Amino acid sequence: MRKVGLIMGSDSDLPIVEKAVAALKELGIEYEAHVYSAHRTPDQVDAFTAGAYDNGFGVLICFAGMAAHLAGAVAARTVLPVIGVPCKSAALDGMDALLSTVQMPSGIPVATVAINGGANAAILAAEILAVYDSALQEKLKAKRKSDADKVLSKDADLLGRL
Amino acid sequence: MRKVGLIMGSDSDLPIVEKAVAALKELGIEYEAHVYSAHRTPDQVDAFTAGAYDNGFGVLICFAGMAAHLAGAVAARTVLPVIGVPCKSAALDGMDALLSTVQMPSGIPVATVAINGGANAAILAAEILAVYDSALQEKLKAKRKSDADKVLSKDADLLGRL
Amino acid sequence: MRKVGLIMGSDSDLPIVEKAVAALKELGIEYEAHVYSAHRTPDQVDAFTAGAYDNGFGVLICFAGMAAHLAGAVAARTVLPVIGVPCKSAALDGMDALLSTVQMPSGIPVATVAINGGANAAILAAEILAVYDSALQEKLKAKRKSDADKVLSKDADLLGRL
Amino acid sequence: MRKVGLIMGSDSDLPIVEKAVAALKELGIEYEAHVYSAHRTPDQVDAFTAGAYDNGFGVLICFAGMAAHLAGAVAARTVLPVIGVPCKSAALDGMDALLSTVQMPSGIPVATVAINGGANAAILAAEILAVYDSALQEKLKAKRKSDADKVLSKDADLLGRL
Amino acid sequence: MRKVGLIMGSDSDLPIVEKAVAALKELGIEYEAHVYSAHRTPDQVDAFTAGAYDNGFGVLICFAGMAAHLAGAVAARTVLPVIGVPCKSAALDGMDALLSTVQMPSGIPVATVAINGGANAAILAAEILAVYDSALQEKLKAKRKSDADKVLSKDADLLGRL
Amino acid sequence: MRKVGLIMGSDSDLPIVEKAVAALKELGIEYEAHVYSAHRTPDQVDAFTAGAYDNGFGVLICFAGMAAHLAGAVAARTVLPVIGVPCKSAALDGMDALLSTVQMPSGIPVATVAINGGANAAILAAEILAVYDSALQEKLKAKRKSDADKVLSKDADLLGRL
Amino acid sequence: MRKVGLIMGSDSDLPIVEKAVAALKELGIEYEAHVYSAHRTPDQVDAFTAGAYDNGFGVLICFAGMAAHLAGAVAARTVLPVIGVPCKSAALDGMDALLSTVQMPSGIPVATVAINGGANAAILAAEILAVYDSALQEKLKAKRKSDADKVLSKDADLLGRL
Amino acid sequence: MRKVGLIMGSDSDLPIVEKAVAALKELGIEYEAHVYSAHRTPDQVDAFTAGAYDNGFGVLICFAGMAAHLAGAVAARTVLPVIGVPCKSAALDGMDALLSTVQMPSGIPVATVAINGGANAAILAAEILAVYDSALQEKLKAKRKSDADKVLSKDADLLGRL
Repeated sequence: MRKVGLIMGSDSDLPIVEKAVAALKELGIEYEAHVYSAHRTPDQVDAFTAGAYDNGFGVLICFAGMAAHLAGAVAARTVLPVIGVPCKSAALDGMDALLSTVQMPSGIPVATVAINGGANAAILAAEILAVYDSALQEKLKAKRKSDADKVLSKDADLLGRL
Repeated sequence: MRKVGLIMGSDSDLPIVEKAVAALKELGIEYEAHVYSAHRTPDQVDAFTAGAYDNGFGVLICFAGMAAHLAGAVAARTVLPVIGVPCKSAALDGMDALLSTVQMPSGIPVATVAINGGANAAILAAEILAVYDSALQEKLKAKRKSDADKVLSKDADLLGRL
Repeated sequence: MRKVGLIMGSDSDLPIVEKAVAALKELGIEYEAHVYSAHRTPDQVDAFTAGAYDNGFGVLICFAGMAAHLAGAVAARTVLPVIGVPCKSAALDGMDALLSTVQMPSGIPVATVAINGGANAAILAAEILAVYDSALQEKLKAKRKSDADKVLSKDADLLGRL
Repeated sequence: MRKVGLIMGSDSDLPIVEKAVAALKELGIEYEAHVYSAHRTPDQVDAFTAGAYDNGFGVLICFAGMAAHLAGAVAARTVLPVIGVPCKSAALDGMDALLSTVQMPSGIPVATVAINGGANAAILAAEILAVYDSALQEKLKAKRKSDADKVLSKDADLLGRL
Repeated sequence: MRKVGLIMGSDSDLPIVEKAVAALKELGIEYEAHVYSAHRTPDQVDAFTAGAYDNGFGVLICFAGMAAHLAGAVAARTVLPVIGVPCKSAALDGMDALLSTVQMPSGIPVATVAINGGANAAILAAEILAVYDSALQEKLKAKRKSDADKVLSKDADLLGRL
Repeated sequence: MRKVGLIMGSDSDLPIVEKAVAALKELGIEYEAHVYSAHRTPDQVDAFTAGAYDNGFGVLICFAGMAAHLAGAVAARTVLPVIGVPCKSAALDGMDALLSTVQMPSGIPVATVAINGGANAAILAAEILAVYDSALQEKLKAKRKSDADKVLSKDADLLGRL
Repeated sequence: MRKVGLIMGSDSDLPIVEKAVAALKELGIEYEAHVYSAHRTPDQVDAFTAGAYDNGFGVLICFAGMAAHLAGAVAARTVLPVIGVPCKSAALDGMDALLSTVQMPSGIPVATVAINGGANAAILAAEILAVYDSALQEKLKAKRKSDADKVLSKDADLLGRL
Repeated sequence: MRKVGLIMGSDSDLPIVEKAVAALKELGIEYEAHVYSAHRTPDQVDAFTAGAYDNGFGVLICFAGMAAHLAGAVAARTVLPVIGVPCKSAALDGMDALLSTVQMPSGIPVATVAINGGANAAILAAEILAVYDSALQEKLKAKRKSDADKVLSKDADLLGRL
């Protein structure tokens, strides 16, 4: 199975990246994480992206805040699917990162998830890798079932409390 | 190769869907398109989604405007990757559809593209199907090259005009 | 008198639900509360909604944050009036939930109240049940009077203090 | 069956009101429509609202744009359910009317529908009147079925066209 | 000299009102403050407003949050100048109150100041009363001078510190 | 009676200014209108403002779009009441002008009216001048009555048409 | 004197670029314009930027819409001042381009001007080149004077017309 | 080398100004900082700006929040490049200051950086001064290299930790 590459524009995004890593581990997916900035280290971003397929990656997840160009910069240099996680920073409540990530021009898509949506980025990566991998599909279904059971267990707990 | 399913919540989204269809055709990807509304025909949405994998689909693209629930409703019932295209309608300039599509809760991701981003949804679907299909990767690279050539040709045209 | 059903998409919405429950208790209205997620447990949402009228419900209140699809998903499967309470979460100050709840397409309305407006959802439910129930109308009028008296008592307290 | 009262703050809202009227007619619900402004004719708004229940109304729908106070002003003087339709005007794409209508303080709810959502306001009014009227429930279900059939007919039309 | 009337929709707005009161005291202007809600005590709002001129008021300042209708409701019933102070509440960062206050329809203006701008509301009231009162104009100029001196004193303090 | 000064930042704002002029004429108030830009002709803005009181002005109305600094620049140099009319321009639907006009810092208020609210600016100016002028108050009341009659006449016209 | 480089992400931005070119011509500044996309032709963007200083450029202006990464991508590869012009496209009224351009992370600034602000970008470039060029400063002052004269001439034209 | 002038509208902006000062010191650029308010001390703003070039300044940086007019007021009175730093204040998350700073009308540009982007304002000022100063260009390149090294060092630290 191909690996998932995680690139964060700044280590301040680490708490969001950790949610993605936890989900990837839970699903048994290999990954590799890096701190590379589209603006401060563009060469490293380009080099990592250019070699990503040959180095065994199947999906790349990019985490960035403010004028979040990282996912777009990565998507510009690969035809692997690129997932963008807009990260909320000190102003504008994440709207800047969301629009900078999702509003990509025609030709270069970024698969954008919710603001700070680290876990969902990982699950989306897994869904992509699972299209031709029925064992991984089963793991995803099992996680769905487990998530649903947690909801229903909370529903049961509520009985008589409200 | 698995097919791409396209579901639009209303036939008013057809011009956006057509951009996706054009890109899929250009890339030689099979597809099937439907008008199913998450709110007006939820049973058809559920039935189509539940059978999608068995019916040969690999990626589903959902087009919806306003309180755009369609992609989320589909994502809730499959572990196939689901792409959401927020469609701009008469008020709020597409912001309602964007937030309704992208801000999915943890566990159920929707891969969101730009407002009215039909072509990018198709290209993202192709990128997903291409992870384990190097022939399709080559087609995507060729399309990238052709898109780049168009930009450079416009650059050449500009010389002496400005 | 018919009951009010309360569905929250996540137990993180419980503090908002409790405000609704308090208002329903104050007005002597029977209710039943559940944790059911439109995305994680869609079958339970559908089943609860489909049986709601036969199980004695007259109004359903849905509480959800982010891409808040719950009220719309419920409204798609019943002709009972459905009230949506957009819940503020970690980003975007509740705007995502508000637009996802209120901007419903033609045919399937959701009666939307203010962000985190749990108490008002309950009062609206009571007003709906009271259309043909003059005793409940009197209770609502008494609550209005009591609310007004609180304002006037605060006005009296202010005298000489400012 | 109780009537539905429709109040528009300005006759510029008439096209939105007409969508509501069409839906009410389709459902066989009696109604009465007025042009009364919360700011220019507050006395008429107050008088109409105060007498609404005794004059046979069961639900009131208010249409207003900009700083849309009409629904709130009406809700302040009745315990009948009040539905607010935010109307888009020349600036801000309807966001001003939406927030002015939906963000009501605790105690005085307004059941808000989508910007320019005249038809949905009427359907919501019908759902409210139908809570204790199973014949009207059947009409609503028939309308739902007819709406769904239109979607499915459009889906059928699409076959072979895309 | 005519008095300034201050009406707050809820005593949660008191900290903002106190800033206005401090400025009025500094300028030697008489005032009277009330807690009256446009939605919970509309009769008191109407009665106070209707009698305002005869009771010696020259300007009315209204403080309200969320769907802030108070200033508009007051302006609808007087030709005295009405100043609106949008108050920030738990969601949407004050944008709801700002739009609900400022976007008044033609015919009924509200003089809107900044979100939570209690002091400026008082100064604006003073400027209005000072149009035909040169002594009050001098007090306003003195306050301007004192404010400017504070800025310049901070500028002097900065020297050598940065 | 003191005059009203109207300053527009650009003659593209003329249609909004004309609405103010029409209302001032209707109320019999003297005025003087200028095109002065806070950014392109700051000296003229300063000179006009500094002499405004001595030249017989009682209220100043400023019309500007985009980063609408004009009202603030004027308010910084006079203690006359300054009314700001945010004008909608090619982008952002007037939100830029609204925030630039209304969010004034403590000490220097601008009485802000609705986006493009030229008529209301004039009426507010009249209300300010009328605080100590009961004849003008009567004219304002007559205009209110005439506005209300127009609404009621439209209400009458509606009878039987809907 | 160093040249100004203009890069547009798409030739749909040409009308905005032309406003910049007109201002540069008026000020006698040499320039060179290109169509290079940060996403579709990243190599050309990088190559042009890397060689910009040696090729005689002193300031670079970037024009882009939607998730406007162009200015940031250029700024990441040069220490020349980079000016960003956010271009309004089909949705969101230019807000996406504005936030994507201005909200740059610490270390890599982009000098952002107004949405569609082509002329101002050119004037800012001229001001930058003029810091050590007093002849160009005089041209800028002359342009300011001419702009002011146009305003004052419009003011004169207004006399007697309003 | 010319100096950088820093003007803050209020000393509450000092923490943002200090980030600019730190970057200027790091790059060995002379500066002078002042507290001058566009609204409370317009004369000082005008006088400082008018003399800025003769007093050895080459770039001016303005820091202001809310209806942030300072940068525009300064830009109106100089042809030196003016950088605006929108400062976030108590409401609206900095959006008011951003729009008030960046949306300047044609003719008078302000080079706007990110909300609270003090460091970037200083770096942009340095880039401007460096256009004709290759020693300063080298310092900027060294700072870029040092910033990149910090990112790469964080990347190295991450190895084995995630």
